[in-house]
Amino acid sequence: MKKLWQGRFNEESSELLEEFNASINFDKNLYEEDIKGSIAHAKMLGKCNIISEHESKEIINGLKQILFEIENDRFIFKTEDEDIHMSVEKRLSQIIGKEIGGKLHTARSRNDQVALDFRLFVLKQNKEIANLILSLVSTLKDIAKENLDTLMPGYTHLQHAQPVSLAYHLMAYAFMFIRDYERLVSSYERNNLCPLGSAALAGTPHPINRELTALELGFSKPTFNAMDSVSDRDFALEFLFNISVLFTHTSRLCEELILWSSQEYGFITISDQFSTGSSIMPQKKNPDVAELIRGKTGRVYGNLISLLTIMKSLPMAYNKDMQEDKEGVLDSTKTTKDSLIILTQMLKTTKFNKDNMINACKKGHLTATDLADYLVREKGINFREAHYITGRCVALAESKNLDLSELSLDELKTIHSDFDKNVIDILNLVNSKEARKSYGGTSNRSVEKQILIIENFLKDKLS
Amino acid sequence: MKKLWQGRFNEESSELLEEFNASINFDKNLYEEDIKGSIAHAKMLGKCNIISEHESKEIINGLKQILFEIENDRFIFKTEDEDIHMSVEKRLSQIIGKEIGGKLHTARSRNDQVALDFRLFVLKQNKEIANLILSLVSTLKDIAKENLDTLMPGYTHLQHAQPVSLAYHLMAYAFMFIRDYERLVSSYERNNLCPLGSAALAGTPHPINRELTALELGFSKPTFNAMDSVSDRDFALEFLFNISVLFTHTSRLCEELILWSSQEYGFITISDQFSTGSSIMPQKKNPDVAELIRGKTGRVYGNLISLLTIMKSLPMAYNKDMQEDKEGVLDSTKTTKDSLIILTQMLKTTKFNKDNMINACKKGHLTATDLADYLVREKGINFREAHYITGRCVALAESKNLDLSELSLDELKTIHSDFDKNVIDILNLVNSKEARKSYGGTSNRSVEKQILIIENFLKDKLS
Amino acid sequence: MKKLWQGRFNEESSELLEEFNASINFDKNLYEEDIKGSIAHAKMLGKCNIISEHESKEIINGLKQILFEIENDRFIFKTEDEDIHMSVEKRLSQIIGKEIGGKLHTARSRNDQVALDFRLFVLKQNKEIANLILSLVSTLKDIAKENLDTLMPGYTHLQHAQPVSLAYHLMAYAFMFIRDYERLVSSYERNNLCPLGSAALAGTPHPINRELTALELGFSKPTFNAMDSVSDRDFALEFLFNISVLFTHTSRLCEELILWSSQEYGFITISDQFSTGSSIMPQKKNPDVAELIRGKTGRVYGNLISLLTIMKSLPMAYNKDMQEDKEGVLDSTKTTKDSLIILTQMLKTTKFNKDNMINACKKGHLTATDLADYLVREKGINFREAHYITGRCVALAESKNLDLSELSLDELKTIHSDFDKNVIDILNLVNSKEARKSYGGTSNRSVEKQILIIENFLKDKLS
Amino acid sequence: MKKLWQGRFNEESSELLEEFNASINFDKNLYEEDIKGSIAHAKMLGKCNIISEHESKEIINGLKQILFEIENDRFIFKTEDEDIHMSVEKRLSQIIGKEIGGKLHTARSRNDQVALDFRLFVLKQNKEIANLILSLVSTLKDIAKENLDTLMPGYTHLQHAQPVSLAYHLMAYAFMFIRDYERLVSSYERNNLCPLGSAALAGTPHPINRELTALELGFSKPTFNAMDSVSDRDFALEFLFNISVLFTHTSRLCEELILWSSQEYGFITISDQFSTGSSIMPQKKNPDVAELIRGKTGRVYGNLISLLTIMKSLPMAYNKDMQEDKEGVLDSTKTTKDSLIILTQMLKTTKFNKDNMINACKKGHLTATDLADYLVREKGINFREAHYITGRCVALAESKNLDLSELSLDELKTIHSDFDKNVIDILNLVNSKEARKSYGGTSNRSVEKQILIIENFLKDKLS
Repeated sequence: MKKLWQGRFNEESSELLEEFNASINFDKNLYEEDIKGSIAHAKMLGKCNIISEHESKEIINGLKQILFEIENDRFIFKTEDEDIHMSVEKRLSQIIGKEIGGKLHTARSRNDQVALDFRLFVLKQNKEIANLILSLVSTLKDIAKENLDTLMPGYTHLQHAQPVSLAYHLMAYAFMFIRDYERLVSSYERNNLCPLGSAALAGTPHPINRELTALELGFSKPTFNAMDSVSDRDFALEFLFNISVLFTHTSRLCEELILWSSQEYGFITISDQFSTGSSIMPQKKNPDVAELIRGKTGRVYGNLISLLTIMKSLPMAYNKDMQEDKEGVLDSTKTTKDSLIILTQMLKTTKFNKDNMINACKKGHLTATDLADYLVREKGINFREAHYITGRCVALAESKNLDLSELSLDELKTIHSDFDKNVIDILNLVNSKEARKSYGGTSNRSVEKQILIIENFLKDKLS
Repeated sequence: MKKLWQGRFNEESSELLEEFNASINFDKNLYEEDIKGSIAHAKMLGKCNIISEHESKEIINGLKQILFEIENDRFIFKTEDEDIHMSVEKRLSQIIGKEIGGKLHTARSRNDQVALDFRLFVLKQNKEIANLILSLVSTLKDIAKENLDTLMPGYTHLQHAQPVSLAYHLMAYAFMFIRDYERLVSSYERNNLCPLGSAALAGTPHPINRELTALELGFSKPTFNAMDSVSDRDFALEFLFNISVLFTHTSRLCEELILWSSQEYGFITISDQFSTGSSIMPQKKNPDVAELIRGKTGRVYGNLISLLTIMKSLPMAYNKDMQEDKEGVLDSTKTTKDSLIILTQMLKTTKFNKDNMINACKKGHLTATDLADYLVREKGINFREAHYITGRCVALAESKNLDLSELSLDELKTIHSDFDKNVIDILNLVNSKEARKSYGGTSNRSVEKQILIIENFLKDKLS
Repeated sequence: MKKLWQGRFNEESSELLEEFNASINFDKNLYEEDIKGSIAHAKMLGKCNIISEHESKEIINGLKQILFEIENDRFIFKTEDEDIHMSVEKRLSQIIGKEIGGKLHTARSRNDQVALDFRLFVLKQNKEIANLILSLVSTLKDIAKENLDTLMPGYTHLQHAQPVSLAYHLMAYAFMFIRDYERLVSSYERNNLCPLGSAALAGTPHPINRELTALELGFSKPTFNAMDSVSDRDFALEFLFNISVLFTHTSRLCEELILWSSQEYGFITISDQFSTGSSIMPQKKNPDVAELIRGKTGRVYGNLISLLTIMKSLPMAYNKDMQEDKEGVLDSTKTTKDSLIILTQMLKTTKFNKDNMINACKKGHLTATDLADYLVREKGINFREAHYITGRCVALAESKNLDLSELSLDELKTIHSDFDKNVIDILNLVNSKEARKSYGGTSNRSVEKQILIIENFLKDKLS
Repeated sequence: MKKLWQGRFNEESSELLEEFNASINFDKNLYEEDIKGSIAHAKMLGKCNIISEHESKEIINGLKQILFEIENDRFIFKTEDEDIHMSVEKRLSQIIGKEIGGKLHTARSRNDQVALDFRLFVLKQNKEIANLILSLVSTLKDIAKENLDTLMPGYTHLQHAQPVSLAYHLMAYAFMFIRDYERLVSSYERNNLCPLGSAALAGTPHPINRELTALELGFSKPTFNAMDSVSDRDFALEFLFNISVLFTHTSRLCEELILWSSQEYGFITISDQFSTGSSIMPQKKNPDVAELIRGKTGRVYGNLISLLTIMKSLPMAYNKDMQEDKEGVLDSTKTTKDSLIILTQMLKTTKFNKDNMINACKKGHLTATDLADYLVREKGINFREAHYITGRCVALAESKNLDLSELSLDELKTIHSDFDKNVIDILNLVNSKEARKSYGGTSNRSVEKQILIIENFLKDKLS
C-alpha cells in the first residue's frame, strides 16, 4: 500500500518488508506519549504562527479523539501503517481532513518524534518503578521492626559467621534498594530534556519555540544539539542498567528466600498463596515466585547487553537499528513491575520460623570472633595472636563434635591459661549480637538507627 | 481456581501468582510437540501394559482431537491453566473423562515433559533454519557465478587493499554460512536424545520402555541419566549461540550492504521493494532491512546471555528459573527465520553497479603488492626490501596526487633503477586479480573451484 | 606455608590452592588505597584508645615505610601472601614487630578492608577518567570552532540527509561525552561513603568511630548497614556501565573516523603518527587506533557482564566469588584511559579535507527537505503534500542522473506549477544549513550557542 | 623506530601509538605456533622453488634458534616490535641476515599468519581442556562407584523431592561434562583447516602449495576462501562458548558443593588443603575454591560476549578490532585449566558425610510419589486422583509435624480406605530408590549401567 513517504519510489514495498519493518506491534504501547507529544507540538506551531490558531485547535481535537478511540478499543492498528506515529497521523487526516492533518508534521521528523515518545515513556517508567521500590523497602522495614530480637546466623561464604538479627539482615536489602531508587531518580533528572524540534538531524528552518514544547511536556529544558538528540539512547541504556542492578539485589534476596524455605534451613514458610506444587510429587511445595524472579535476572541482563550491542559503532545520526531499542525496554519494564509487586506481597505473607533460626545459631562457633576480641580487650593479647588461640579452641571443639560455646572453661584453659569465667558471657549469642554497637552494626541500638534513617527517607519521598 | 497439584495446599493461589507463574502465553507455541510427545507416551504405556490397550487408544484419540481444536482455533488457552501441559491434560479429561484422562500422566512428570517438548521444538528449528541458510548460500553462489569478472576493491581496515572480484567477495560469505549450517547440524545430532521417561528427576518405578518413545519421536536413543535430563538446557544454549554466530555473519554482510548502498560507494542499488523513505526528507531511500538485521544482532546476543545467566549456579535438578528458557529461544527463532528470508529476497533483487565498483579500484594503489611481488620474482629482491621500495613509490604517487598505476616508468625509476617496462602489466587491475591463482584466491580459476565446492555441498544437502 | 588464619586448620594448604586463591597478582594495584586505609584505621584506633597513642604511631610509621618500599620497587610480592592486605600486614610485623603489628587488624576484617580499598580505587578512577573526558570535549570544541563553515553531508541511515557543518557534527559528540562525564560524577557522589568499620559483616564490639575514618579518607560519611557494606559492589557495576556507555560513544566516533579516512569518503587524513602500515601491502595506511578503540568496546562490555554475572544470586554477605570483581575493573580502567588519551591526540593531528566534504554534498539531494519546507511556507501547501511533490522531483532528478539541485526551473515545473525562481536559493547548500536556526540546529548561530554552553561547562569544571 | 612497513610513511609513529597498537604483551604466548607456522611456510617455499633449498634451510635453522632462545629466556620482547610476528622476523634477519631473512614473508601476510597462529593455539587448547574434562569425569565416576548405596535427598526447586543415591547425583554431572567434551572435539574437527597461504585477503601470485603446509601443520586441509580465512574467528567464538557452557556446569556443581559444606547441610567436608580461613573470624573454614570457580563463570561469559561484540558488523576482511580476540581466549584458557585441575583434586579429597545425607532424607516426604504410584499400580486409581489423595496425606503429616513415612496405617486410612499394610514398604527410602529401575533412573542397576557407559567412553577416548 502507498506510504506517506512514497513520492520518490517507483515500486511498492514488498509484503515481506512491511512485516519486517513495522514496529506498530510494540510501539503502540507508546500511543499516549505519541499523542501527548503531538498535542504539545501542534499547540506550539499555533502559538508561533507556523500554522493558524484554528488549525492548531482542529489538530488537537482530532488527536484527543484518537486518544479516546485507542483507550476505548475503537482503534485498529494495522501492520501496513508501520508505526504508532504513522498510524496516528493517518487517522488524524481521516478525522480532520488531509489539508489540515497534513500540517501536523511541519517542523518535525519521525526521528525526533520517536526520540520524544520513547524518552517520555522511559522517564515515566523510571518514576513508577522507583515508587514500587519504596513499597518494597517499606515492607522490609516493617518486618525488620518486628524482628529486632530474632536471632539468626550471619553468613559469609554461606558459612555461619556471627550472630545477627533478622532485622539487621533485612535492613541490608533495604539499603540496597534505596540505592536502586536513587539511581532511577538520578537518571530521570539527567535525561529530563526535550528532543522535540530536533527534526531529522539538523533542526528546522521553521521559527519553532522548543522551550515551549519542553515546558508543556514537563521537561526541564530542550536538548542541546539536534544530531545528538535523535541518535541518543543513553536514557534507555541507563534504565536497562539500573534495572539490571536492581535484579542483582532481588536475585540475592530470592536466593536467600529459596535457601530459607528449604528443608535444611526451615527459616521461613512461604504462604500457600505464593507457592506451587508438582505434577508428579504430591508433597512438593515450591518457592516458584522467588525462583522466577531470580531467573528473570537473566532476561534483564540480556536486554541490557542487547541495546549496548545495537548502539555500538552506529554512525551519526538515526539508523534503523535503533528501532530495536523498544522491545527490551518494554520487557524489562513489565518484568520489573510484576516482580516488585509480587515480591512485596510474598514477603508480607511469609512466616518466619524463629525457633529454627535460633537453633541454627548453635552450629558453626558463631561467637569465635567475640572470643578473640575478648582476648584482645581483656587480656591485652594482640589480635593476630588472639585469632590464633581462638582457632585452636575451635579445632578442639570440632574434635569433640561440640560447638565452641559448649566447651568448658577447663577445656578452654588447655589451649591458653588466661581464660577466666567471664568467657562464658562472651560466648552467649545475644550478648554477641548486642556487643556490635558500632555504627551500622547488628546491635538493636544500631539497627534502630538504620530503621529511623529509612523511615525518614520514606517519609521524605512519599510526602 | 483448583490446581492439579492442589492436594497438599490449604490456601488457594494468589491471582498475582497465577499471572506471574503462568507460561501458557508463550509455551502454547509448543502445543504440537506437547501433544506429539503425549501420544508417544500413551502408546508406550499401552504397549507396556501400564495402561490398557483401550485406555491408550482413548487417550490418543482425545489428544488428536485437541490437536485439531488448536489448529482450527477452537481451543481457548487460559492463564489459570498455567502451561501447555496442564491445558492439554485438563481438556483431555473433559473429552474422555477423568478416569482415563488421569492416567496419561502415569510414569512422567512435567519436568521430563517440558524437557521433551522444548527439545523437540529446538531440534525442529535447527533443521528449518539450516534449510533457510542453504537458500541464502545458494543465492550468494548464483550472484557470484554472474560476477566472476566484476572487479571491486578488496578491503582490509576498510582501506583499499587489492583488487578482487565481487564473486570472490560473496563466496567469503557463502563459506561463513556453510559453517553456520554445520554448527546447527552438529548440535542437532549431539542433542537428538529423548528425555521422556526421566520423570521428576530419578526415573520411575513403572515398567516403561524408553527406547520405544525415543524411536516413536524420531530420536536416536534415550538420554542417559534422568537427573541430568530434566535439568539440561545445553541444546538451547547451543541453539542460541549458533544463531548468535550466524548473526555476526549477517551483521557483517549487512554492514557492507549499507556501505555499498551509500552515496560514497554507490556499489549497489537496493530495490524499492526493500527500501523505505523518510517522513521528513523526501529524497531519502534507506536500507532499512540491512540495518534492522544488523540491529537484531543485539537481541540474539541478549537472548544467549540471558539463558547463560539463568543456568549459572542452579543446583540439581529442575528449578523454576528454567521456565525462563523459552521466550528467548522463541524470539531468536522468529528473528532468524524472518531475517534469513528477507535477506535472501533482498539480495536477489539488488542491482550491482559494476561501473562504480571498477572506478573505485582506481583509488588506493591496489596493485602495490603486485609491484613488490614483481620485484621479488623478477628482480630477485627480498620481500622486505621490495616492500620498502614499493612503499616509496606509493609515497611518490601520493605526493603527485596520482594512483600508483598512473606513475610513468621514468617516475618509478627515480625510486629504483631496476624497474622495466613489464611493470605496466603488473599494475593492471585484471592482471592483478588473475595473478592470485593460489588455492582459495581471487583469480577466476580459484573462485570457480570455490563455487563448485559449494554447489556440490548444496546438491548433497538438498538431495 | 602458615597462614594468618591457620589456627583451626590441621592440614596445610595445597599449592594448587595457594595459586588459585591468591589475588596478589592484581590487587597489588591497590597498594596505595590499602595503606592509606590502614593509616586512617590506625589513627582512629589510637584516638579512640583502642590501641595506645604510641602503638598507633608505630603502626603508621611502619605503613609509611612499606608505601615507600613499594613505590621504590623494594617490596617483593609473593603468591603465598595471598593478597595485598596480608602482604602489607605481614611486612608491618617484620618492621615493627608482631606484638604491635598484630594490633592493626583490631576491629576490622578483610571484608571491610577490601570493600574500602576497592571503593577508594574506583572513586579515584571515576575522577581521573572524568578529567580525561573534559580534555576530549575541549578538543572537539576547538576543532568545531574552526569549522563552523565547513560543509558536509549530514547522514541518517548512512545516507545523505541534509547539509550540516563539521562543527555541528562534532558538537553532537561533545554533548554525548558531557553526559558520560556527568554519569561518572553522579556515581562518585552516590558512592562516596566509607565502609571501613563494618568488620566481617556485623560491625564490631570495639568502640570505634567511623565518622573519623570516613572524614580522614575524604568520604562524605560512613555507610549505613555493615552487612550491605561488605557485600555491595554497586559502585563497581556503575563504573563498568558508565565506561560501557562511554565506549558506545567512542565506538560511534571511531566508526566515523574509519569511514571518513576511507578512499570512498576521503574526509580526513589521519596523521602518519597515528597510522600503521601492512606487512604485505606497501601502500596501506590504516586507521588502527580508531579500529582498536572500536574493538575495545567488546572488552568493556564483557567486563560489565562479568561482574553482573558474578553478583547475581549471591547470598549475604561476602562470598569469595567477589574476589573476581577487580580484574575487570582494572582492565576497563586502563582501556579507558589509554583510549581517551590517544583519541584526543589523534583528533588534534587529524587533517580535515574540506573540499572532499563539500563535494560529497553534491550527491544525495541534500536540500530536498528545504524544497518541501519552501512549498509549505511560501506556497501554503500542507507538509504531507509538499513531501510527496518533492519526492517526485527527486525521482525525476534520479532518472536524469542529476542531483536535485541541478534540475532547472522548467524541469521542476513539470512536477508542480507553483515553483518559481526563488527555488534556486532554496536549493543552495549554505542557505540550507543557515536556515536551520532552531535551538540545537546546524546554523552557525545555533552552533555558536552550543559551543558557548560547552565552554561555560568546561570553565566551571576546570576551575 | 623504523617499522617494517615504513616505506610510504613520512612521519614516525607516535610513542602513544606504539604502546596502544602493540600486541606483543599477550601474543608472545603464541610464539610456538608462530615459529612452527613459519617453519612450515619456509619448507613449502623451498619445495615449491619460490626460494632456494638453501634459503629454506637457513630460515628454518634461524627459526629453530629463536625457538630455543625464547624457551630458554634468552629472547627479549620489545613493545616497539609490535607483535610476535614482527619480533620473530626481525630477530631472524639478525641471525641469518636481511637478504635471506627478508624472504620468509614471501607469499604471506600478517593477516593469514595471525589467523594461523591463533587457530593453532585454540585447537591445541581444545584438546588439552578436553583431556582435563576426562580426568574430572573419571573422578566423578570413581566416587560414584563407591556411593551406589549412599542415600541422599534428590532435589527440585531446592526442595526435597525423591530419594536418590549420591552415585546417581554425581553421574548427572558426568554426563554434562561428557557433552562439554564432545562440543570441544566437534569444534576441533570443524575448524581443523589451514588458513596459511590466504595472504592479505586475496591469495597470492606465488606458486604456493597450501596442501603441503596444511599437512605439515597437522590440519586436515586448507581453508576454502582466503578472504573468509583471514576474517574468520568462528573457531575462537566456539571455544569461548564451549567454555561458557562448561562453566554453567562447574558453577552448578560448585553451588552444590558450597551448599553441601554449609552447616545446614553438612553433606561434605572439604579437606583443609582446599579450604581457607578468615582474617577476623577464627572458626571459619570456607569453600573458597568452589566459590571462585562459580565466580569465574562471570569472566568466561564476559570473554564470550566481548568477542561477539567485537566481530559484530565488521566489514571484510581483516580489521584491527580483531587484535582484541586474543586476551579473552588466553584468559578463558587459563581460567578453565586451573579450575578443572583444582576441582578434580578437591573432589578427590572431599569427605562425604553419609549419616547427614541419610538423616536429611527423613524430611520432606520423599516417598510421596511412591505412595501415589502405589495407588495407581495396586489400587487401580488414576494418577491424577492418586496424586490428590497423597497430597491430602502429606497435609495430614504436616499438621502433625511428621514426615509422611511416619504416619500410621490408621492415620493413612482416614484419608482413603484403600490403603493396606503393604504401604509401609512403599514408604521405605531404599525401596523407593531401588524401585526406580527405568533406564536412566536412580536404582543401583540403572546407575551401574550409566557407570559402564562412562567407563567405556573413557576407555575409548584415553586409548
